[in-house]
Amino acid sequence: MRPVAVLGIGQTKIDEQWDKSLREIGGEAIFAALADAGIDKADALFVGNMLSPLISGQNQLGTFFSDWAGMWHKEAVKVEAACASGAAAFRAALMAVAAGEVDVAIALGVEKMTDKAGHDITAALATAADADYEVEQGVSFVGLNALVMRRYMYEFGWKHADFAPFSINAHANALHNPFARLRDRITLEQFEKSSMVATPINLLDASPVGDGAAAVILVPAEKLSARPGKPRVLVAGSASATDSIAVHSRRDPLFLSAAYQSARRAYQMAGIGPQELDLFELHDAFSIMSALSLEACGFAERGQGVRLGLENEIQISGRIPICTRGGLKARGHPVGATGMYQIVEVIQQLRGECGATQVTGARLGMAQNIGGSGATILTHILKLD
Amino acid sequence: MRPVAVLGIGQTKIDEQWDKSLREIGGEAIFAALADAGIDKADALFVGNMLSPLISGQNQLGTFFSDWAGMWHKEAVKVEAACASGAAAFRAALMAVAAGEVDVAIALGVEKMTDKAGHDITAALATAADADYEVEQGVSFVGLNALVMRRYMYEFGWKHADFAPFSINAHANALHNPFARLRDRITLEQFEKSSMVATPINLLDASPVGDGAAAVILVPAEKLSARPGKPRVLVAGSASATDSIAVHSRRDPLFLSAAYQSARRAYQMAGIGPQELDLFELHDAFSIMSALSLEACGFAERGQGVRLGLENEIQISGRIPICTRGGLKARGHPVGATGMYQIVEVIQQLRGECGATQVTGARLGMAQNIGGSGATILTHILKLD
Repeated sequence: MRPVAVLGIGQTKIDEQWDKSLREIGGEAIFAALADAGIDKADALFVGNMLSPLISGQNQLGTFFSDWAGMWHKEAVKVEAACASGAAAFRAALMAVAAGEVDVAIALGVEKMTDKAGHDITAALATAADADYEVEQGVSFVGLNALVMRRYMYEFGWKHADFAPFSINAHANALHNPFARLRDRITLEQFEKSSMVATPINLLDASPVGDGAAAVILVPAEKLSARPGKPRVLVAGSASATDSIAVHSRRDPLFLSAAYQSARRAYQMAGIGPQELDLFELHDAFSIMSALSLEACGFAERGQGVRLGLENEIQISGRIPICTRGGLKARGHPVGATGMYQIVEVIQQLRGECGATQVTGARLGMAQNIGGSGATILTHILKLD
Repeated sequence: MRPVAVLGIGQTKIDEQWDKSLREIGGEAIFAALADAGIDKADALFVGNMLSPLISGQNQLGTFFSDWAGMWHKEAVKVEAACASGAAAFRAALMAVAAGEVDVAIALGVEKMTDKAGHDITAALATAADADYEVEQGVSFVGLNALVMRRYMYEFGWKHADFAPFSINAHANALHNPFARLRDRITLEQFEKSSMVATPINLLDASPVGDGAAAVILVPAEKLSARPGKPRVLVAGSASATDSIAVHSRRDPLFLSAAYQSARRAYQMAGIGPQELDLFELHDAFSIMSALSLEACGFAERGQGVRLGLENEIQISGRIPICTRGGLKARGHPVGATGMYQIVEVIQQLRGECGATQVTGARLGMAQNIGGSGATILTHILKLD
């Protein structure tokens, strides 16, 4: 594989964007990334999206967006891996550039979710689970995560309030991110009194959906010299791993083995271990997933991920800052776009563009994107050159 | 890019497979390809599918099938480009192997369509078109192709019966393909009297949908020596190109510029021209598309593709045999799987496994897969080593 570097990034605010079409939202991120890169066109477009066939009646999003971006005759394709679609599109773009087939590739993650009613969104999100063996039983996606959280609390003896620091930290960081959906500070008391969604998951354990898009432009490292004000960021590690699609099929539903495997391979590719990372954008779709991700990626022992929150180790100044721009919990979770937001945020940190939530001297950052209840997990490590 | 070779192929019969689930149909092709390759597992799985979220309520097909194939912890992802999803998955697998990231990759195309009623399938297929500017006007996918065909007949002076040889040839070849859906010979009289679908497209201009799956296993060429009875087939050319997603946005709706561009790049990569090809598996979703593909790929002048059929040049013994296993018209068109069927069939020809429809001494074959009404077009050239 030839080394690959980041030429530009772009993102939209995550919100209920009822005044903008799917096309406009994705376009906004593409054009922002092109402007940041200082170019007007790319050779190929890889789009991550999960729900547009179900929510917008639109398939073939690769060509849909290459058309809108005026990239006629260029290569374009959509990649889908449920909520890991964003990082999967990034990896597809990376492979095309690494193989030497493409010189300038755009990876776009995009999702427009809020045009439908809540129950329609819930049904659409359930397509990430096993239709035959999970959804058929009537379980929703949040329901599956609630079963995992309840079991975790029982096995390791944690109480619900112990998960609060994950959500409090995410909201505190999102205050300083203009692209975040929820920009309000929350307290432990609010966390404990929040409305129940699927016990023990309440509203402040869960990330909000939203409409949004984020994009990254990749080029061969050899063709990119450092530009004034834009430090050179390289893709140091990339890996994708899977587990059973149904939670009940796993030997241990409390261990994210696909997170472990993809992180292990990404560390190996980057030639580093977890202790060398300056920040970690993890997939906190639900607070339980923060704990499980930290454990699987080597930051905590089994059943002890919660402790990192309680001991203030996940804050900007902590041992391993997470969700530095708000995470899924407060930045928002436009499902197929989330993986690209995470990667864009890591790049912002490495470039030193994060203001009040800047991790001082960040040189190595990791993003991990989860599809389904731990079924498809992609891990990317980026580094400042 | 490192050179890539074919290790194994597999396919299922295309039919109304009401007794088999999506999982079983895709699994059947994967296991057939693994058996043909003489291995029991691969490093990665790339799945092409268009409709499973809409028809089966199932997303995340990469992991869905890697799970079923026992490939836990391996990489898996779904790729979607409407009816070009199959070839897009093949190209994603190719990039991963060519980049040196993966050593044994399975590309799978799979579609289960017939569990829904006809009007639901028509609505699902319309997601390939532009939801805002085409489908919103009430046009169906066959309607779009009918507009193109009518214009072609008007511009170039052909009558409906002139398209008959495409369908007659496809049905004649499918007679000898045990995996084909329609294995009956048709006559010119039947073609002319067939029921109208969307004028001028009648039932015998249109390909039948179906349930089916096809798979190819790719490995680095350097790791594959020729095996007894299985000649070594290499991927000689691969390219993807796009056009506007809406037909009305094209400067010339009668020229498949994405077919022209992707074929041009594939020829260049393979170092050949169209005259050197021994066969061409083209995307005859409707008879008009056969004519347009032949023209865009350099086999006929503009408006003269129809002539190749009338002059018997598309038959097995002709100048450029097409649809040698029945094409979309008679083998059947399980949309996201079709591109993989085409590639499997080219490989069968190069291996000399096609019996009564074997192209004598075939050494170079091309497969072209079209998504939307000419919006996303992938071209692959395979060669006997």
